[in-house]
Amino acid sequence: MMKIGLLGHGVVGSGVRKIIDAGETEEVRELQVTKILVKDEVELTDPRCTLNADDIVNDPEIDIVVECMGGVEPAHTFAKKALENGKYFVTSNKKMLASCCNDLFNTARDHGVTVHYEAACGGGIPWMASLDRTRRVDDIDSFRGIFNGTTNYILSRMAKEGTEFADMLKEAQALGYAERDPSDDIDGFDVRYKVALSCVKAYDALLNVEDIAVYGIRHIDKKDLDYCRENGMSCKLIGRGINHKDSVSAFVIPVFMPVDDVFASIPLNFNAIESDSKTLGKATFVGQGAGSLPTAHAVVQNVVDIWKDQDSEIYIKTPRPVDNSLYSSVYYVRTSKKDAFADVCDTVIKDGEETVLLTKKISMKEMDDLAKASGDENLFIAEVQA
Amino acid sequence: MMKIGLLGHGVVGSGVRKIIDAGETEEVRELQVTKILVKDEVELTDPRCTLNADDIVNDPEIDIVVECMGGVEPAHTFAKKALENGKYFVTSNKKMLASCCNDLFNTARDHGVTVHYEAACGGGIPWMASLDRTRRVDDIDSFRGIFNGTTNYILSRMAKEGTEFADMLKEAQALGYAERDPSDDIDGFDVRYKVALSCVKAYDALLNVEDIAVYGIRHIDKKDLDYCRENGMSCKLIGRGINHKDSVSAFVIPVFMPVDDVFASIPLNFNAIESDSKTLGKATFVGQGAGSLPTAHAVVQNVVDIWKDQDSEIYIKTPRPVDNSLYSSVYYVRTSKKDAFADVCDTVIKDGEETVLLTKKISMKEMDDLAKASGDENLFIAEVQA
Repeated sequence: MMKIGLLGHGVVGSGVRKIIDAGETEEVRELQVTKILVKDEVELTDPRCTLNADDIVNDPEIDIVVECMGGVEPAHTFAKKALENGKYFVTSNKKMLASCCNDLFNTARDHGVTVHYEAACGGGIPWMASLDRTRRVDDIDSFRGIFNGTTNYILSRMAKEGTEFADMLKEAQALGYAERDPSDDIDGFDVRYKVALSCVKAYDALLNVEDIAVYGIRHIDKKDLDYCRENGMSCKLIGRGINHKDSVSAFVIPVFMPVDDVFASIPLNFNAIESDSKTLGKATFVGQGAGSLPTAHAVVQNVVDIWKDQDSEIYIKTPRPVDNSLYSSVYYVRTSKKDAFADVCDTVIKDGEETVLLTKKISMKEMDDLAKASGDENLFIAEVQA
Repeated sequence: MMKIGLLGHGVVGSGVRKIIDAGETEEVRELQVTKILVKDEVELTDPRCTLNADDIVNDPEIDIVVECMGGVEPAHTFAKKALENGKYFVTSNKKMLASCCNDLFNTARDHGVTVHYEAACGGGIPWMASLDRTRRVDDIDSFRGIFNGTTNYILSRMAKEGTEFADMLKEAQALGYAERDPSDDIDGFDVRYKVALSCVKAYDALLNVEDIAVYGIRHIDKKDLDYCRENGMSCKLIGRGINHKDSVSAFVIPVFMPVDDVFASIPLNFNAIESDSKTLGKATFVGQGAGSLPTAHAVVQNVVDIWKDQDSEIYIKTPRPVDNSLYSSVYYVRTSKKDAFADVCDTVIKDGEETVLLTKKISMKEMDDLAKASGDENLFIAEVQA
């Protein structure tokens, strides 16, 4: 019997408690939630509830601490204490783990325990578990993903109905698809956290999350999608990580891809993630990202992994630099500062107050440097996939 | 170190040997292919090769027998001998295992070993592994799949280009997408084997494969796809299994589904498979079905499962009846024998020498009984998904 302390009892945390309390399978009946951290006194509805995280992270009877609080602090402090006390740690909190991965993975290693984060990336999609499994036979060469349902919903609706970005964002928010902070979605930060965590799992690489280049869809316009359609392409917000020997190329960017790419028709608020490796080749997972029970299911799977001692977290994770000079492509640029891109311009699609152009084949690093140097606050860029 | 005997050294078998000989990961370096059954003397190119299967299935040093021969016999006889000799058994041979599942799973149980078949269904898609994992937390309620790349290629091309079935079949064969016997693809038998094996993995249910209702696309016509398009639908050949307490609904049938269904846009020779369970909800896997190395990868994963003692094949598999009276839908029928369907007809779409009609909501069993009784050799039926 594994004893579990639960930090957070919101949408995901309460789902975890329900699944474990229900005990529908033999494996789950081996688990027991013994303490639950809640936010205020009105939530003290269960004798297991406490308002003091120390009751959980310092409890010698607890084997596994599960964190579903969200936010960087105090989740990070609680996680660190739990690991220092020799407890296994499971989290659904992508922002906290991606931001503090160096600290937490090192602390775990020093105390002989492990960190698990299936629910932090892909929600109900068994993405992390699949990477673990694939790695038993193959090295992972690269991955790409539609990691964010909100932006995929917006892009799908805009493409299908020819609507404007602002209207679709409002609708996505009304439907409850948006994360707490809409900037996390539309500026690509949510995807950036997931790329960072996928690099940990796929490559054992601890990246500085701030080094992952990030371009979102805040400035996308109906006319960008018109260009896609007229050229047999579809636009998706993609997170990528490419494995090099000593570094990783890692970035988030809208991608114009041919309509027969399997990602091109991923509808509405679905996620899709794909790994590429030598013998398995491309393996693709599709699912509706979030939701209380699917995310809670992923958390419980990690707890079962620990109970069965089936985790692959034996691999040592080490810091690795992001190097986006090793990935090259053609980019679509819509800008009011065309001079900033003169040296890399290959084709001018439209000139005027705003210029739309295609670059020569350049590295993602060069594109990123030029974009930052341009000073264009309304710049929209996308990768054009051959 | 696990010692492996390989039965068959064709496309898949040679891939298995290559992956294990290459030993690219720590896990794979724990495996060793010690003997290989080949078909004739010219293939005796490696000191491990033999022409006599008994050298493998009776070798006391061999822990695991891997079968990649294809065909029911002699593969079934060799499998049985291996299990009786207490060897674990891994196969990529869906036809043999689906046809002999009762015998082989019982033999395995009686001798304290297990049968593994990840590569028999979905090729490189980790479908079986995902069912194993999901079942640790959830019962599986149902699954559906585009299990056959050849027919999906034909249907995708027909829908996109308005071409005829016969032309697309020829093209698929020219591209090498067709299985050895094209009837296995276009009449749905290949999918039927995969549905049977998915029911073993998902429900521990040993079905009589002949009881699974099967309708293929041999008689599909351009005008059926025109009807789909005019009504906002897409046609896919689907295998389904639905879990009931004492029985399973299991069938293979073309399905007309709304174009925004995630399956509707699965392109060309891709496979897509989806499970549905209580807390995880729908989990979907997409991949290019076959191929030497992806299928061999799946075989090697099963060998690693055995080495790590991580298989869930602890579950006892028992015979269960197919009961298609428990699943109801509306069906599209194109027939020259319209009188046979008079009692269930709801709407006549087109009358004439051939009649096209939609049925009332009836059970799959009733549809199957009527189709068989009609005597219409060119009958085309499809389920119409709401």
